[in-house]
Amino acid sequence: MGMWRTAITQHLGHETYIRGYRLLDLVGNLSFAQAVYLILKGELPTERESRMMEAMLVSVIDHGIAPPSAIAARAVASGGNSLNVGVAAGILAFGSAHGGALEDAMKFMQEGVASGKGVEDIVSEYLSARKPIPGYGHRYYKDFDPRTKRLMDIAKALEFYGKHCEFAQAVEEEIAKQKGKKLVLNVDGAIAAVASEMGFDWRLGKGFFIIGRVPGLVAHVYEELTTEKPFSKRLDEEKDVEYTGLPPRELPPDIKKI
Amino acid sequence: MGMWRTAITQHLGHETYIRGYRLLDLVGNLSFAQAVYLILKGELPTERESRMMEAMLVSVIDHGIAPPSAIAARAVASGGNSLNVGVAAGILAFGSAHGGALEDAMKFMQEGVASGKGVEDIVSEYLSARKPIPGYGHRYYKDFDPRTKRLMDIAKALEFYGKHCEFAQAVEEEIAKQKGKKLVLNVDGAIAAVASEMGFDWRLGKGFFIIGRVPGLVAHVYEELTTEKPFSKRLDEEKDVEYTGLPPRELPPDIKKI
Amino acid sequence: MGMWRTAITQHLGHETYIRGYRLLDLVGNLSFAQAVYLILKGELPTERESRMMEAMLVSVIDHGIAPPSAIAARAVASGGNSLNVGVAAGILAFGSAHGGALEDAMKFMQEGVASGKGVEDIVSEYLSARKPIPGYGHRYYKDFDPRTKRLMDIAKALEFYGKHCEFAQAVEEEIAKQKGKKLVLNVDGAIAAVASEMGFDWRLGKGFFIIGRVPGLVAHVYEELTTEKPFSKRLDEEKDVEYTGLPPRELPPDIKKI
Amino acid sequence: MGMWRTAITQHLGHETYIRGYRLLDLVGNLSFAQAVYLILKGELPTERESRMMEAMLVSVIDHGIAPPSAIAARAVASGGNSLNVGVAAGILAFGSAHGGALEDAMKFMQEGVASGKGVEDIVSEYLSARKPIPGYGHRYYKDFDPRTKRLMDIAKALEFYGKHCEFAQAVEEEIAKQKGKKLVLNVDGAIAAVASEMGFDWRLGKGFFIIGRVPGLVAHVYEELTTEKPFSKRLDEEKDVEYTGLPPRELPPDIKKI
Repeated sequence: MGMWRTAITQHLGHETYIRGYRLLDLVGNLSFAQAVYLILKGELPTERESRMMEAMLVSVIDHGIAPPSAIAARAVASGGNSLNVGVAAGILAFGSAHGGALEDAMKFMQEGVASGKGVEDIVSEYLSARKPIPGYGHRYYKDFDPRTKRLMDIAKALEFYGKHCEFAQAVEEEIAKQKGKKLVLNVDGAIAAVASEMGFDWRLGKGFFIIGRVPGLVAHVYEELTTEKPFSKRLDEEKDVEYTGLPPRELPPDIKKI
Repeated sequence: MGMWRTAITQHLGHETYIRGYRLLDLVGNLSFAQAVYLILKGELPTERESRMMEAMLVSVIDHGIAPPSAIAARAVASGGNSLNVGVAAGILAFGSAHGGALEDAMKFMQEGVASGKGVEDIVSEYLSARKPIPGYGHRYYKDFDPRTKRLMDIAKALEFYGKHCEFAQAVEEEIAKQKGKKLVLNVDGAIAAVASEMGFDWRLGKGFFIIGRVPGLVAHVYEELTTEKPFSKRLDEEKDVEYTGLPPRELPPDIKKI
Repeated sequence: MGMWRTAITQHLGHETYIRGYRLLDLVGNLSFAQAVYLILKGELPTERESRMMEAMLVSVIDHGIAPPSAIAARAVASGGNSLNVGVAAGILAFGSAHGGALEDAMKFMQEGVASGKGVEDIVSEYLSARKPIPGYGHRYYKDFDPRTKRLMDIAKALEFYGKHCEFAQAVEEEIAKQKGKKLVLNVDGAIAAVASEMGFDWRLGKGFFIIGRVPGLVAHVYEELTTEKPFSKRLDEEKDVEYTGLPPRELPPDIKKI
Repeated sequence: MGMWRTAITQHLGHETYIRGYRLLDLVGNLSFAQAVYLILKGELPTERESRMMEAMLVSVIDHGIAPPSAIAARAVASGGNSLNVGVAAGILAFGSAHGGALEDAMKFMQEGVASGKGVEDIVSEYLSARKPIPGYGHRYYKDFDPRTKRLMDIAKALEFYGKHCEFAQAVEEEIAKQKGKKLVLNVDGAIAAVASEMGFDWRLGKGFFIIGRVPGLVAHVYEELTTEKPFSKRLDEEKDVEYTGLPPRELPPDIKKI
């Protein structure tokens, strides 16, 4: 298959180098989030970037047992599997409807800023085509999303509030103006703005979500394995299942051989 | 990494050979179950073996939406993923508590028959050590498991009822005698006996379950993707979730930086 | 989360019904491929449909150790995992570039036939936009794909050669005419034509590939687990890996704390 | 299915609480590794524990493209799948032979220390039964493992070098004494000793490895998706594959129907 090419990690002698730095020098000197930044971006973060990264990853660390990812992770674990298998099942659930908004919002903001177009035109294009703008709107929060406020406050305190954050908030205001109704910049949108500010490619968007949420999935699978009985995650046929198919019927007589 | 070795499939020129047979000769001439037998066993099945194999695979094709595998498959699909990703999540759920009994029962029967020990001694060993005997016992069926009866009737009709099936039913009777209470040979046990009769290694036990159930998982994931809304598989925090952890508490003041 | 709805399988008393038929009646009376047809389509196949289905599933049962799915399955197994985990990893590999052509070709043919447009217009649309037509072209086969010939011969013998198969071969001829060069209808295209003829939705396209190939993956993972050493699937850093990244560099002195 | 129980995360009103702490208070105030500690242990780490945790997670962040996990992740991505699917495949590879030593070594050390037995007896028990002692021995390092030295130096600097670390190094010396040959405490063993010192249950062992390595897997899958062609990860039938099975043979004539 020819050579497998990579620019991430190199082994020289018995030493491991991550993006050119000796791994053992990183151990003890970088925080975990700083090492995450290095391996994804290829360069060491500054102090501001480090603190922004810590905040971003912490903000998605868990969202309880209710989302599809926790359901899948715990159902798989309850089938009698190891920790790694349950965690992987949880990560599989992070499709376009579960963490995908972060990626879409990064794409929207990076392309929006790069295009040089006015926010007014961009918003009216989406609204007239009735396309949802990724990163905006929330089921409960109608005035502002407190998680967005928190991340934006931190971004400002770290002097990290640049053109992508400004664009993100300008879009929020423009939606309210054109639509006559507020669609708040939600937490996916806020992380998207900040990650874009840090110069990350939108194709990595789901990566932040995965890295940040994996500790939550580990905690859920560990909890399932240590506190629940095997096979605990199954539905109750009487209470949880509605059968919507055909009623019982007979097999045609010519098919019955035995 | 050196060569990747395999004895399953060979490409010669532009032809594919499965266990030595030209794939194109198999297409149209073997049933799917016969090809399954060939690829797993290395040889073509006889007519009796073919019919037994068809019956075994059909017997596990689906068990509804309630088991952990269907939950995981549909939860992952509901996160906005492709068919293959949902199906894979379902297969991940087939751990030691979900399909594992089939494998364990095959091991028990193959070792039991090979050991030459009496059924009386084997059963008393398990019962005195209070170890469950894999393939026996059922939540609802206390007299007999109708699926077992069906498979055993077919095995008899196909003259496929040999020493492993006899061993399996002798163990059922011996348990009743020693325990004073019947533990029926369940469907996992019945498949295990039949698969052992066909000469399959117990390490392949879960393989029959996986191959037989995959069509059910495909049907479930397809149904989820075409009839349900994205993110439909999430719990209701009010009705479905019980929080058993610590109540809200304050972060120590020295930790608050921002 | 409300009820989990399904139209596939129902439990009544202690009996299981698949698409309305008692599971135990199917065992022994349907072949496995017939049961696959039933669970996917909702109805029993005719004799012709049964034989076509057997042929389709057999045609994809394995393609050796070289494709990404076999690599992933065996690498995961070599990490020290159970049969189900390796098989699931293989299925994960069936993305848009691996089995996806079957799905795309089904969509192309079903929309093409339904549109009522002429084949001439359809082909010229694709060629002028330089879009690849899914299901056509092959690295080695320049005159015809022998697997396509085989499936089409069977389709004809079973009187299963209708408007989708005709459309598929008309497109092949039209490409040759407009392009001045043949792009053969490949095996993905042939299965797509036949599955469309049987009335299956293109969204199920990858499902046939998954169901048909799972026995091959089971054989590969079983082979890995029983004939190779744990961790056998790793690259040789000297021979297999090309590092394309930055050379070793020093950590800035202000970062060194320890 | 009754309630899904969890003690990890609670939603109250529109606020999320992790182990009792308001998530928004954690964002900006905890480092990511501190939040990992909190969600796994249930309590906030001290300064020493935080720094040890950062070091542990950084120490496993990547090990290049050679291990089965990177192979599986990149093979799956090359099949045309999303970032999350490739990363999940990588995590699946973390079975008993890939990261499992960490878990086994934690169990060995925690049980060893708790047993009160002498190190002499423990080691001789293993050696006389010819059982490998998990966490000891290395292909290249015969005198000491530099990664172990690094982690142990940090553990000492943070006053984190207690009974588990002492036990781990006493076992290393005792092996050398009884065996007449050194088996170095390797990096799995070193992390195991330190994680045990921090009071983590050995059943969580693989969790540290998963959390620490996920950023590396994200980097690999992103690299595959952005720098390599689809389907790049396949073997070369000529150069990479050795076929060890049966040579071509003819199908028996009675099977040929078509």
